[in-house]
Amino acid sequence: MTDNNRFNAWACAGKGKTLAKTNELTLKQWDEDSVELNITHCGICGSDIHTMDSGWGPTLYPCVVGHEIVGVVAKVGKNVSHLKVGDRAGVGAQCGSCHQCQNCKEGNENLCMNNFVGTYSSKWPNGDKTYGGYADRWRGDYRFAFKIPDNMSSEIAATFFCAGVTTYAPLKRENVNSTSVVGIMGIGGLGHFGVQWAKAMGAKVIGMSHNDKKHDVALELGCDEYLVTSDKEAMAKYRRSMTHILCTGTGQDFDWNTYLGLLHANGHFINVSMPDWNFPELHPVVFVMNQVHISGSAIGSPKEIEEMLEFAATHGVKPWIEIYDMDNVVQAVEDFRAGKPRFRIVLKN
Amino acid sequence: MTDNNRFNAWACAGKGKTLAKTNELTLKQWDEDSVELNITHCGICGSDIHTMDSGWGPTLYPCVVGHEIVGVVAKVGKNVSHLKVGDRAGVGAQCGSCHQCQNCKEGNENLCMNNFVGTYSSKWPNGDKTYGGYADRWRGDYRFAFKIPDNMSSEIAATFFCAGVTTYAPLKRENVNSTSVVGIMGIGGLGHFGVQWAKAMGAKVIGMSHNDKKHDVALELGCDEYLVTSDKEAMAKYRRSMTHILCTGTGQDFDWNTYLGLLHANGHFINVSMPDWNFPELHPVVFVMNQVHISGSAIGSPKEIEEMLEFAATHGVKPWIEIYDMDNVVQAVEDFRAGKPRFRIVLKN
Repeated sequence: MTDNNRFNAWACAGKGKTLAKTNELTLKQWDEDSVELNITHCGICGSDIHTMDSGWGPTLYPCVVGHEIVGVVAKVGKNVSHLKVGDRAGVGAQCGSCHQCQNCKEGNENLCMNNFVGTYSSKWPNGDKTYGGYADRWRGDYRFAFKIPDNMSSEIAATFFCAGVTTYAPLKRENVNSTSVVGIMGIGGLGHFGVQWAKAMGAKVIGMSHNDKKHDVALELGCDEYLVTSDKEAMAKYRRSMTHILCTGTGQDFDWNTYLGLLHANGHFINVSMPDWNFPELHPVVFVMNQVHISGSAIGSPKEIEEMLEFAATHGVKPWIEIYDMDNVVQAVEDFRAGKPRFRIVLKN
Repeated sequence: MTDNNRFNAWACAGKGKTLAKTNELTLKQWDEDSVELNITHCGICGSDIHTMDSGWGPTLYPCVVGHEIVGVVAKVGKNVSHLKVGDRAGVGAQCGSCHQCQNCKEGNENLCMNNFVGTYSSKWPNGDKTYGGYADRWRGDYRFAFKIPDNMSSEIAATFFCAGVTTYAPLKRENVNSTSVVGIMGIGGLGHFGVQWAKAMGAKVIGMSHNDKKHDVALELGCDEYLVTSDKEAMAKYRRSMTHILCTGTGQDFDWNTYLGLLHANGHFINVSMPDWNFPELHPVVFVMNQVHISGSAIGSPKEIEEMLEFAATHGVKPWIEIYDMDNVVQAVEDFRAGKPRFRIVLKN
């Protein structure tokens, strides 16, 4: 007799270990709030790699990473009304919250103060471990499983659930529009989404990177202009020119004066990156005398995910992806580590 | 024959020098953009003292400080239509800007990128030095002289022009309203305005100071509650409770984690203080995972000053002031340095 809770997964057994296929792990215990997906696609996110490496503190091994999951609904609990068997649905970096705290009640479940349940290396309220999308099945709370718009393919949909919403949510929240001039720092997995969102919101977009290697691809993505941040003359030309900067990554030589100096009065420096180092000291003059805002943003709320999917479907925003067979995940991770993808890898079952 | 450009002033001749009365200095050369005031009142601001001490770099001595000026209009140029002889008018920390740069054109003259003219220790475009309000007359650009509302006394009006607008503008800009919970860090010259603005905007207000000495006066000013920031238990109780913090001053032991931890999701930490030290390093988790904003604000624009005067007159916001005769300015400065005023000193001619 097969245990219906067992699933096939590519698991990481410990820091430095290569992913290995297993059918020893079990899905979350079924309840009437559950949705079960037969996974068709899963994006590879930098967080997957960082978690496999215990980069943010000890990982709960064995760990099945992957939080850009898309699949076909195989089963729904009685409390689930927005999804039915056969629908396509996606799951992002969060799969549970307390629903009781002030943030949850206000629709900011992504900032849950009591029990943020991560899609992997985390635990469900019942104590079961969470497992992500490098697998053939996913089971979890219906409140964090979202219907894919009909005109969006599953392979395209996957990477919206982490990279997509992480960049969409703050640009939307800070009111990027046709009067905005948005600098996107880092033209990578996150940044290539940032460029497309800002363009679709009507802004003028400046791609930013520390050298000129991304020049052509930045323009191809839709950037109006490209700024090499190590070029002092070019940086001077852009002084006080931007309404928003979205920082998706930067080096440890980052200094506030250089980047805040690019912002127009009352401008926004929005950081979504999570470097291992601290942002440096901040001289009061640097943020007071030009009235700039520094803010951070963490993934997005369920409401923002739904809004993003709708926005992407309407505006034709599409990640640039390379597809690998799920069985080829070890190679895919290796290529990701080597910085090969332009710009995102999607695993396919 | 008297030189009509000469005026009586209390000037600082150099760093560490006591103010001394002089009639050797001359007002800005008259032109058709000029307004001349017979000064009746001038507030004492911390910036006056810091400038007398060359605290922000070398001061242009001899210097007549004072940028919370109120007087009676004695003369207006042909280009002046909003003021007439006999009106009461006030001048704040800025008395000129280029009117050409993007910030000026957008009504952010306080952030002028080409020629911010300070009310003292600065120069007019024609090269004349600017002189502030520790004097009997002021002359300058009509675009930075504002009519005092009829129902506001001149002595009350004075301190609105620096302390008032510095605290009003950012609270208004960041949309403080009846759903807000606003922490005011520092119950002093700026903070006592902050409390009153936030209350008048409908917010719940928490007075904050490093010890309990200001408890009673904070409640008297209108604070709903009082938080001792050195009390770890109390700080824990207020964790994630505020929508805004207005930082009017803090110690060098400031750390981001402690204060940003008080903010609700998407909350605003607004700094209007200008300490001599830098704000410390910022761990990405501290501002990313609760999506908080850090911003600075510098005085206010002409439009914000006008709006503030109207708001104050309507809502009965009133500074707590102690009045000294202008001839007693040396004593007044001494008392200010000793932290005696509750909360602002106004000099009276």
